This record gives sequence, structure tokens and C-alpha cells, in this order.
Amino acid sequence: MKLNDILNHTSEWLKGEGPNSNIVISSRIRLARNLDKLPFPNWANKKQSEEVLKKVEGAIAGVDYLKKTTVFRLEDLDSVDKQFLVERHLMSHEHAQKADSKAVAVDEEEVISIMINEEDHIRMQVMQSGFNLFEAWSIINKIDDLLAKELPFAFSADLGYLTACPTNTGTAMRGSVMLHLPALVMTRQIDRVLAAISKLSFTTRGLYGEGTQATGNFFQVSNQVSLGLSEDNIIENLNGLIRQIIEQEGQAREVMLSRNRSLLEDRINRAFGILKSAHIISSQETTELLSMVRMGYDLGIIKELDHRRINELFIITQPAHLQKLENKKLSVQERDVKRAEIIRSRLKI
Amino acid sequence: MKLNDILNHTSEWLKGEGPNSNIVISSRIRLARNLDKLPFPNWANKKQSEEVLKKVEGAIAGVDYLKKTTVFRLEDLDSVDKQFLVERHLMSHEHAQKADSKAVAVDEEEVISIMINEEDHIRMQVMQSGFNLFEAWSIINKIDDLLAKELPFAFSADLGYLTACPTNTGTAMRGSVMLHLPALVMTRQIDRVLAAISKLSFTTRGLYGEGTQATGNFFQVSNQVSLGLSEDNIIENLNGLIRQIIEQEGQAREVMLSRNRSLLEDRINRAFGILKSAHIISSQETTELLSMVRMGYDLGIIKELDHRRINELFIITQPAHLQKLENKKLSVQERDVKRAEIIRSRLKI
Repeated sequence: MKLNDILNHTSEWLKGEGPNSNIVISSRIRLARNLDKLPFPNWANKKQSEEVLKKVEGAIAGVDYLKKTTVFRLEDLDSVDKQFLVERHLMSHEHAQKADSKAVAVDEEEVISIMINEEDHIRMQVMQSGFNLFEAWSIINKIDDLLAKELPFAFSADLGYLTACPTNTGTAMRGSVMLHLPALVMTRQIDRVLAAISKLSFTTRGLYGEGTQATGNFFQVSNQVSLGLSEDNIIENLNGLIRQIIEQEGQAREVMLSRNRSLLEDRINRAFGILKSAHIISSQETTELLSMVRMGYDLGIIKELDHRRINELFIITQPAHLQKLENKKLSVQERDVKRAEIIRSRLKI
Repeated sequence: MKLNDILNHTSEWLKGEGPNSNIVISSRIRLARNLDKLPFPNWANKKQSEEVLKKVEGAIAGVDYLKKTTVFRLEDLDSVDKQFLVERHLMSHEHAQKADSKAVAVDEEEVISIMINEEDHIRMQVMQSGFNLFEAWSIINKIDDLLAKELPFAFSADLGYLTACPTNTGTAMRGSVMLHLPALVMTRQIDRVLAAISKLSFTTRGLYGEGTQATGNFFQVSNQVSLGLSEDNIIENLNGLIRQIIEQEGQAREVMLSRNRSLLEDRINRAFGILKSAHIISSQETTELLSMVRMGYDLGIIKELDHRRINELFIITQPAHLQKLENKKLSVQERDVKRAEIIRSRLKI
């Protein structure tokens, strides 16, 4: 697989087909693993990092279940390629910063991604569309078992899996769910919900992970604690919390629909109208308007479209995606014009 | 003719067909006349006002050229009817305030309107679409001559026509032109232009005359001086000034188009997109967005539509027009919803 093959392809997590896909975009589970007797990436020298990289590449190649994954060495990718992978949630922003002895393995469906020499030697993730944590867990658990047969993972009977940052030690697992919560935001209940999430030792972040703002009413909720609980417990807890948030968002949508239907129809149709007619549009405005359109579709106010087309627009209007589509570098101004052009053409009925 | 006949009818001045109709909406000439030996309306008692009303009504009925005009006594109209006539520029806001012994005569084409017992006994006006002051003058001059044969106008050899307010004395004529100047506003040249107009002893006002703001980039330019110049001179001077403003607006549009085409396409298409999709919209926002759409049509950026449809939308989205169309009183909120509905249906391609 070439990197450009991903471009004209809908990733599994963008299909918008899973359970509760009106509110849950995707479910993701990530595991951190390190190789025994080799220093963590930030302490390793060039030779040690190369050794890790080769060993992990070899292990991936040796696992039949991973035969559809392709390993991309970051030194072979330019800055747009790397940003492109970040925008698709296939690797972290941090991983894209330095290329030396780093790589990312991705499968055709973009279900699996394995970062090599990020903060830990291995950061593997599995993404599913909709509310689907258990399926994601079952896949990643299998990959972990298969890789463990090939690689000596650093593990302590007392602490569990050892990681570069002690907050990840233990299960070294993070489950996270990307939620679309426009009604909780519009009815000003979101602060109360976020405070409750934080009290329960879960964290919330924006679309692109740590430090990013919650534009477009997207919130990533994930577990903070990875030590002292089993993987199953962590997932059960996260799952229960998400179920409650889904219910609250659903109620907020119904209340808005019954009490402020005109106002809602106005905001949603205006958003759709602007997207269909703008000739210059920023990434942020796009995300915010698409958020309204997505809710409009979910509430039956917008009849055309579907989740897949809306989800894809969120992604292909990102800066690196626009540049990949055009196959050249674009300035911010050029991107704003190109973005508007692509949105208009994709929303033309 | 009934008042409601006007509702589903395009007035002459809304047709958008006259010269320079891309920049000039309409040209209007107004003459004030008073009957000799009867006090001005604000000083007249009930009996005297009724005498004026009957005499003027009789004169109108006696002039064959005015046989297609209908006289509406304001006491027979409700507040929505009166506001409706104001919105169509067929009578002044002031005239609508008190009903006693007041009337307005209107012809089918809405070219001619004659207010009886406004500030003066007679305020007649003739409106033409586009830049057409001389045609308006030729029509109103004829009406004035014909009415002068029927009615003894108060006239002084020294001062000219006598009027209730001394600023109108002399020719008692006001010529005014409604201009659409979005490019001068967007390129921030409008203040310079307005200052020059004022220095030359002309006045500028908004869409609905004295005291109204210039929403939607509409400016009414009219002569301030009516004494010491002949009617022909006043019209020549106003005509020359308007010609210059038209040229400046035209240049500003060309400059914007060549230097900021994307920005212009964005603003114009967004305005059109919002109008086609909003479900709640105020009168002011409507006027501002329609202003962009009108310029968009003039610049060839919007291909569908025509001046007539755009001009009509400016008028039928006004509060009294909405209530006439619905045939009932509507609250502000109900009007905002109804307005959006009408705009959507009229702009559906």
C-alpha cells in the first residue's frame, strides 16, 4: 500500500456505521509496549533506536494477522505526509516532530496503527466507528498477544507493563471515545458534564488530542488511570460513562427539538447553506458548520447526506489533506479557497 | 382599485428597468402645493381640513390624466395598511401618524402618489425606476399644470410656491434618487462621497427618508435648496451629481472585482446561501444580504435572478407587507419566521 492509497479511501472509523453513530464518531484503544533491556526512545542512542525499529518491523512482518499493514518510515515522508497521518488519527502530533528511527504501521482499513519509537517503543491503536470499545479491545488484545510471541515486552509482576511515562504504567492502556455533543454545548450543560467526567478520573480533549480545543463540539473522553485496574474494568467503566453521556446528549437534542425547533432549523440550515455557498472558508469555521450539519442530519432536519459523507468532509478539509488532494503545497489563503471549492462540490445535490 | 390590488403587483419603480438600474433603484420628484386662503394643515381646524380634502379629491376626480388614481382616506385604513403604503414609498411615515382629514391618492402603476393634508395641503410625487429624473419631472409637471387649472395654489411672485415649512418655499420641489452603493461602502470611500454631497448642498438619507439609517447600502440623495433656482436647474444639478456618484460606484466595483474577486465571490455567495436557507431572519439582515445579492447579480457573480425579483424581495419582506400577505397581525418573531419562508420560496431555483 502507498500512502496516497489512503487518500481516496474511507477509513473504518469514518464510515459512521457503528452503534450510536449519531453521537459517537469512533472508539479507540491504545496500548503502550516497550522492549525489554532496551532504553525508552528518549534515552536510546541511534543504534539502539534502529535496533528497536528493526525488531518491531520484523515482528509485524512475522504476524500473519498484520499482513495487510504497511510500515512507513518517517524519514521517507515529507511534512505534508506526516501531517496527513496525524489528521487521520493514525499517528500522534508528537510522533511527527522528529523522523529519526521512527515509523508507523497502518493497515488498509485504517483500523490498526502501530507507532514505533514514539514516547514508547510501541504504541499500537485500534479504531472502530461508532460506540464499539469492546470490538476495538478484542482486536487490539489479539494483536498484542501475537506481537508478544515475537517480542520480549518489558513487564513487571508488580507494576505491569513498563512505560516511559509512569502515568501509563500498568495496563498501559488508554481507551478513548470521540463524541459529538452539540446539544449539550448549545443548552449550556456541557461544563457540568465535563466537570463530572473529570471527577470520575476520566479526561476530555479536543479533536486532535492533548492540548487541542473542542472545536465543532467534538470531545474525546478517555481513561486517566491505567494502573490498579484490569483492562476489562477500565473498558467497562469508560463504557458506562459514555453510555450516560450519550443519553444526556440525546435528551438535550430532544428538548431543543421540541422547544426551539425554528431556532434549530435556522442554525442548521444556515450552516448547510453557508457550506454550500462559501468561496473562502477556514478549517475551524468548516468544523463548526459541519458540526451543525451533522446534528441536522441526525435530527432529520437535513434529509440529503449521510454520516459517511459528513465525516469525510471533516477530514478531507484539513490542511494536509487539501495539499495531498492538490498534490502541492498550498498557503493558508489558497487552502481556504480550495477547501470551500471541495465542500461546494461534495455538497452539490 | 383596492389597496390589496397593489400587493400582488410590481410598482413601476421596483421594476429595475430604467437607466443605470444596476446602481440606481429609483428617481423621484415631489412637489408641495397649498390652497390659497386656507391655513396650512397643522393650523387648520377640522372644517377647513375637510374643505381642503374635498376640494383636492374633486380636482383629482376632474383631471382625466389622473383617472386611474384611487383616493384612500386614512380613516378607512388600519395601521398595517398605512405602514404598507409607507413601505412602498407611496406616503410618508409622518402622514401615517394621524388619520383626520388625510388621504393619499395612488395610481395603479404606483408612479403617482398625492398626499392630501400632510405637512402641506398637497404633496404629489412621481417615481420612476432607474436613473430617470427628467421623465419623472415631465410627468409631475403635467400633473401640476392640470391640478393648477382646478385649484387655486398659494403662490407669491417674490417667493414662488408657499409652503408650511419655509425650507420648501420657492419651487417647493424635491428631487431624490435612491442609490445602491455597496462598493463605495465596502471600499470605505462612502464617507468621503457623503461629505462631498453635503458640501454641495444636497442631503443623503436611508431607505425610508429622514432619520432612517442607510441599511443595505442604500442612500437617497436629494436637493436641499428649493428657492432661488428654477426646477430645471435643480434637476440638472442633481442629475450631474448622481452621474458622478454612479461613476464612482462603478469604478469601486471594478476595482474590487479585479483585486478581491475571491473575497467578493465569498461574501456574495454566502449572502445568497444564507437567504436561501435561513428559517428565522430579521428585516435588517434581509436588507443587508439582499444588498450583497443585488451587487452579485450586477457583477455577474450570481447568474439566476433579476433586478425585479431582488427589488421585490426588499419590499415584500417589510413588516406590513408580510402581514398583508398573511392577512393577519404577526408578532416580530412570527414575522422573522414568515420572512425567511417567503425568501426561501422566492429564491428556490
